[in-house]
Amino acid sequence: MENFIYSIPTDIYFGKGQIRHLPKIITEYGKRVLLVYGGGSIKRNGIYDTICDLLKKEGIAFWELSGVEPNPRITSVRKGVDICRQYDVEVVVPVGGGSAIDCAKAVAAAVSYEGDAWDLLIDPSRIVSVLPVVTVLTLTATGSEMGRSAVISNMDTNDKKGFAHPDMRPKASILDPTYTFTVNAYQTAAGTADIMSHIIEAYFSKEEGYMQDRMAEGLLKTCIAYGSKAIAQPDDYEARANLMWTGSWAMNNVLKLGKNIPWSVHPMEHQLSAYYDITHGAGLAILTPHWMEYVLDETTVDKFAEYARNVWDVSLSVQDPMQTAKEGIRRTAEYFQKLGLPSTLREAGITDTDCFEAMAKKAALETKQAYRTLTKEDILRIFQAAF
Amino acid sequence: MENFIYSIPTDIYFGKGQIRHLPKIITEYGKRVLLVYGGGSIKRNGIYDTICDLLKKEGIAFWELSGVEPNPRITSVRKGVDICRQYDVEVVVPVGGGSAIDCAKAVAAAVSYEGDAWDLLIDPSRIVSVLPVVTVLTLTATGSEMGRSAVISNMDTNDKKGFAHPDMRPKASILDPTYTFTVNAYQTAAGTADIMSHIIEAYFSKEEGYMQDRMAEGLLKTCIAYGSKAIAQPDDYEARANLMWTGSWAMNNVLKLGKNIPWSVHPMEHQLSAYYDITHGAGLAILTPHWMEYVLDETTVDKFAEYARNVWDVSLSVQDPMQTAKEGIRRTAEYFQKLGLPSTLREAGITDTDCFEAMAKKAALETKQAYRTLTKEDILRIFQAAF
Repeated sequence: MENFIYSIPTDIYFGKGQIRHLPKIITEYGKRVLLVYGGGSIKRNGIYDTICDLLKKEGIAFWELSGVEPNPRITSVRKGVDICRQYDVEVVVPVGGGSAIDCAKAVAAAVSYEGDAWDLLIDPSRIVSVLPVVTVLTLTATGSEMGRSAVISNMDTNDKKGFAHPDMRPKASILDPTYTFTVNAYQTAAGTADIMSHIIEAYFSKEEGYMQDRMAEGLLKTCIAYGSKAIAQPDDYEARANLMWTGSWAMNNVLKLGKNIPWSVHPMEHQLSAYYDITHGAGLAILTPHWMEYVLDETTVDKFAEYARNVWDVSLSVQDPMQTAKEGIRRTAEYFQKLGLPSTLREAGITDTDCFEAMAKKAALETKQAYRTLTKEDILRIFQAAF
Repeated sequence: MENFIYSIPTDIYFGKGQIRHLPKIITEYGKRVLLVYGGGSIKRNGIYDTICDLLKKEGIAFWELSGVEPNPRITSVRKGVDICRQYDVEVVVPVGGGSAIDCAKAVAAAVSYEGDAWDLLIDPSRIVSVLPVVTVLTLTATGSEMGRSAVISNMDTNDKKGFAHPDMRPKASILDPTYTFTVNAYQTAAGTADIMSHIIEAYFSKEEGYMQDRMAEGLLKTCIAYGSKAIAQPDDYEARANLMWTGSWAMNNVLKLGKNIPWSVHPMEHQLSAYYDITHGAGLAILTPHWMEYVLDETTVDKFAEYARNVWDVSLSVQDPMQTAKEGIRRTAEYFQKLGLPSTLREAGITDTDCFEAMAKKAALETKQAYRTLTKEDILRIFQAAF
């Protein structure tokens, strides 16, 4: 196990009705708020009204950045920064999923930075200070509600980049599983695939981390048990609650601590989303099994066999770990399909391979130190296999 | 899953050499320190000298409370409080295992309280404010380094009581697995049993918590894999590191959140330690299998069978969950014996049953709401079975 520093000061208010704590949490940091949200689903399901009422009763002033894109864009971040500066906003409150939260984090980090917000994605060490972020989660997927990173897209340059800073970790997050009852089947499936991918990225690592990997297996089993249940019965509280809490733990850093290495599938998927704007979780569900098949060999077979046995209960002959490993990969792909996710890029609406070269080149910048080094050529082959 | 609030702001500096961060961490809170430690093993293994050198170089003044008992006593707490008041101590720094840390937490909580420190154990709501606690862990067991509770004994009244307060959670803890290389086989075994008991107490609960239970199983597997390894090879870094980090997670609250109910075996063991001063982990190892056998019936068999399958890989006929459950209990007892722990109270040096009535009466005050309600009579039967 490698040395690490653990620090996760985010408070989580988990469960039905926990929104009542929001005004008290916000006023610890200020009375001037920027609400950040997406396409307006929070207006249809009543969460927006609930929050406005709570803030008004407490005398908290708020301004709004709405219409944040599913893959949040730097243009939205810039708009948010302008509002914060104009109205001396003290607390940024995203209401939504990873998109709203990531956009809010980027806004919070950029307000005190004099240059353009995109600079911070290129070099997070330029971050001067970060406004407090308090999130209200309505979509289970990215784990951003408990994490220190954010992913922002720049459509001018076809860039989708992640950046992280300890102060970008939310001060508090409200996780009410009932807020996810209205998330449709496809988004629930994509969210579940995203959670599973976060866990898988941490699991397959060159560094030893026995305890972390056993926790990872437990979290994967939870996704497998409840992903399809939440789709079959959208208001199944236990299913939504287990997915929601697992989503936070998949990404709050605990699984990576002590075995920290760069990820493999996310860098590839970020290119897909940047170039084709496809749903992040769908892209991950397509790429993950293909990546697994590509990196499975004599040097990785033991880890993949362990994954197959401990996560998917594959109990094939121990004499043939390769067969066990392959069965684990097959079940991974099968589960994503069972959730209703596409299994090829073509199914996800990508009709040409024109950008694959450029995408592979960019992705390869981040995968040199990954579980298995992935060169541009490797990534190109994985994209082609997934097409 | 029940509603909960998660808040674990303790920073963990994990790994070889992390002690170098100590002065920086302390000076965030002050420059006047009370060092709290036990029988002097930290002087023999050099940790004491290292810490003194670091503090002196940084100009941090320190006083010492040494000789803290394995089951720390209220008399030691009172001594520590006196020192803190006399020298205006700003930060309490226990160096040791749960005993030193629990004593330090009680001192930290009692300094600002005008009455006697024992009052706070009877009613923690009397706590006014808590001095910052920064721990250096040298024994893996209680998880106190990341938790908000402490256990203190009062030998005048044969009382051993736990108490908790959010502000008693350490600000930071330094976990260097090499510091546990010199822990002897018996203490390593007892520590491992303590960790496993914390996990088991949270696991067997009336409340649902699928994700928490899968994490718990992963942590138990880690104890099983590395407890005996650490005993066989005391300087096995991976073994010590995995046990150390698992010990923190067994007790930092995460496994209990959403399924919070009172514990069963700890209240019984606290009476054993209070009356007979036996090693806490040994007491838990003796009582746990007997408690399991006692509460196993038609209403609990499914949970015990799940435990047997998921933790101990028992793959008996699914037609007979009772047989599976019993095999899981048998393997639990067998593992504790393999670690070298006693399997009866007699083996642990208890030669009479004179105090069992009084002990059962006290323990029963805390087990009314447990996984299975335990009356005085139930507890008496468990003590007798374990004798």
